[in-house]
Amino acid sequence: MTNLITLTTDFGLTDGFVGVMKGVILSINADAQCVDITHDIPPQNVQQGAFLLANSVPYFPAAAIHLCVVDPGVGSTRRAIAVEVGEATLVGPDNGVLSLAIQALNVLTPAVKPRGFQLNNPRFWLPRVSTTFHGRDIFSPCAAHLSRGVPLEEIGTPVDDWTNLAPPGPSRRKDGSLVAHVIYIDHYGNIVSDISEQTLKEFGTADLSVEIAGREIRGLARTYSDVEPEEFAALIGSPWKLEIAQREGNAAEALGVCVGDEFVVRHGKKG
Amino acid sequence: MTNLITLTTDFGLTDGFVGVMKGVILSINADAQCVDITHDIPPQNVQQGAFLLANSVPYFPAAAIHLCVVDPGVGSTRRAIAVEVGEATLVGPDNGVLSLAIQALNVLTPAVKPRGFQLNNPRFWLPRVSTTFHGRDIFSPCAAHLSRGVPLEEIGTPVDDWTNLAPPGPSRRKDGSLVAHVIYIDHYGNIVSDISEQTLKEFGTADLSVEIAGREIRGLARTYSDVEPEEFAALIGSPWKLEIAQREGNAAEALGVCVGDEFVVRHGKKG
Amino acid sequence: MTNLITLTTDFGLTDGFVGVMKGVILSINADAQCVDITHDIPPQNVQQGAFLLANSVPYFPAAAIHLCVVDPGVGSTRRAIAVEVGEATLVGPDNGVLSLAIQALNVLTPAVKPRGFQLNNPRFWLPRVSTTFHGRDIFSPCAAHLSRGVPLEEIGTPVDDWTNLAPPGPSRRKDGSLVAHVIYIDHYGNIVSDISEQTLKEFGTADLSVEIAGREIRGLARTYSDVEPEEFAALIGSPWKLEIAQREGNAAEALGVCVGDEFVVRHGKKG
Repeated sequence: MTNLITLTTDFGLTDGFVGVMKGVILSINADAQCVDITHDIPPQNVQQGAFLLANSVPYFPAAAIHLCVVDPGVGSTRRAIAVEVGEATLVGPDNGVLSLAIQALNVLTPAVKPRGFQLNNPRFWLPRVSTTFHGRDIFSPCAAHLSRGVPLEEIGTPVDDWTNLAPPGPSRRKDGSLVAHVIYIDHYGNIVSDISEQTLKEFGTADLSVEIAGREIRGLARTYSDVEPEEFAALIGSPWKLEIAQREGNAAEALGVCVGDEFVVRHGKKG
Repeated sequence: MTNLITLTTDFGLTDGFVGVMKGVILSINADAQCVDITHDIPPQNVQQGAFLLANSVPYFPAAAIHLCVVDPGVGSTRRAIAVEVGEATLVGPDNGVLSLAIQALNVLTPAVKPRGFQLNNPRFWLPRVSTTFHGRDIFSPCAAHLSRGVPLEEIGTPVDDWTNLAPPGPSRRKDGSLVAHVIYIDHYGNIVSDISEQTLKEFGTADLSVEIAGREIRGLARTYSDVEPEEFAALIGSPWKLEIAQREGNAAEALGVCVGDEFVVRHGKKG
Repeated sequence: MTNLITLTTDFGLTDGFVGVMKGVILSINADAQCVDITHDIPPQNVQQGAFLLANSVPYFPAAAIHLCVVDPGVGSTRRAIAVEVGEATLVGPDNGVLSLAIQALNVLTPAVKPRGFQLNNPRFWLPRVSTTFHGRDIFSPCAAHLSRGVPLEEIGTPVDDWTNLAPPGPSRRKDGSLVAHVIYIDHYGNIVSDISEQTLKEFGTADLSVEIAGREIRGLARTYSDVEPEEFAALIGSPWKLEIAQREGNAAEALGVCVGDEFVVRHGKKG
């Protein structure tokens, strides 16, 4: 049991959707404590939602409930699920948006197998369910009841075949270099890749060279200020992945790089 | 008495205005629990504020205080008011922004007549009142004192002639068709009309046809996924009103539709 | 000891950075109450962050902890500091972003000298510290420990030479007129200057004339509605500074004025 419920959605903050979800939660559990992770997931972008949720949940108390609604299939036959991972519970649509967070939390509690449930007991929904806003009508009330200690077994029936997204990762070319994929661009224009700190360590950082958007970046910087203003740096960013940044600038804009683009990481100069 | 105070404004989140209101509230009631509905009402757009507030408050605990500041007349002679509706209290300027929410809450508690008060007792204001930010100097402190149980009778004098906006609704043409008005466009580009679910039910949904922006949409869909990707659907959306959506798209942008535009709802094909 | 922690950053709300900081705080102090001031400081704009923080903190309970992270030098040798001012504590990078708030709070508690500390005891950091997100790894955990009552002396070593920004203020020309600087433009387009109410009072408001962007504004208005719609007004705004506003309009856009621009305040017509 926990009163802490985090919220991650693609609802934006303009329409009051998020406020309404909190209203529903507080109507069921007056002691609930709602914390926003983000509501600016690009509309219906399950992959970006999955990335940001997985990035964030490890920094919350272990016993939190994480509610995540990026739900292009709302009102269709896609399932609503809750997955317990260690002391945490993730609640959302079964479209993969929870899956990277399930994996991230499971790494922290490897001894315990995650348990999934379909949120199919209407007793824990709002009395009147719309076809377009299950965040309000199904997910929030279920999360609120969970936060009051209602067992998952009452809220739904077990499932173990929830949708898993493939964890991101680079591919390796014949010449030994890595092809990284841009998986996120943050507020500052930092370009986040799918090369984890661990993968880069195994690859080796000696004489590292990044080729991105026709530009070569030599060496692995420790932090932004290791390079001159407006220069580009390759470094391990706060999501613990290889990141391309521009000091006092916006790397993504300067390089014209978007999510989904590829770049090459090798040792030494381009041959 | 309640510690729950919701906040709805056109202040945006950039300038710290909302944070300051919470600071004022917590200075008076350290146990207050502030929940944002939205702060992105278009600047000084009383009508949009009224719509979003009315849409949201029914989903909150009955005993909440709802503070709403969209206040183009700040510093003028417009009154500051609080209106008690059932267990809830609405606080804001007397320009109609509270009125649709008063009506929406009154539907839920029809036996109790709403009671209005003018917030004219300076004892419950901040000591120093600006002419441009009554959200900080008058509304927030009054809401905070109310949340501590100070009776409305102490905070002001009774008023019963507060400004009421006309509840939105379609007009009917001689040929029996309805002329709907676009009252809101949400984050996803869904086009919300002033035809309520009830009105549509009375009109009849058999062989329904919507003519909007030169395009005809046949039938009432149940949810987005009832139509093919990029197709348009007419359906009852989460505010329980007739809504025009585009699956995996932004209907308002695709159709070039704005708040205030009209469209026609009829039975059968355009004659 | 206090559970109230305010947050002011340039992180934006999109990436989940702010949510993660709250996760870190709640992991250390489950009773912490986080209140956002703003997260929309222009990226790495220390001056704007300092202005907004100083503007906001006087409206919070005296015993709050104010966490402010606008940190272009993250990962470099710039210090992380906490400064106690009266009952409040400010936490952030030592680049001046805290300084105007320290001054503003010190005015309220002039008898007590502010005490600074460098946050250099790693025991109060997260176990794993990135080089690019000290908001998460150093500032949030230190603020959370402070909120639980850990004394500043344990969290770091005394410093008294923190960076101070010059408090903003106008310059005076030979002919006696004032040259004001635009220090902020708010959500509504109101143009905030560095002429405080006190300075203007000393200058005298009789026959006041403002010359801005080739336009002359005569007289000091009391509030927006003192002038006709779309007219410009000079008035004392909510930050208690001379402000140029356009009734039912966006003054900054209409006049083409930006932060850093100058304008002239004099008595009587331009000579």
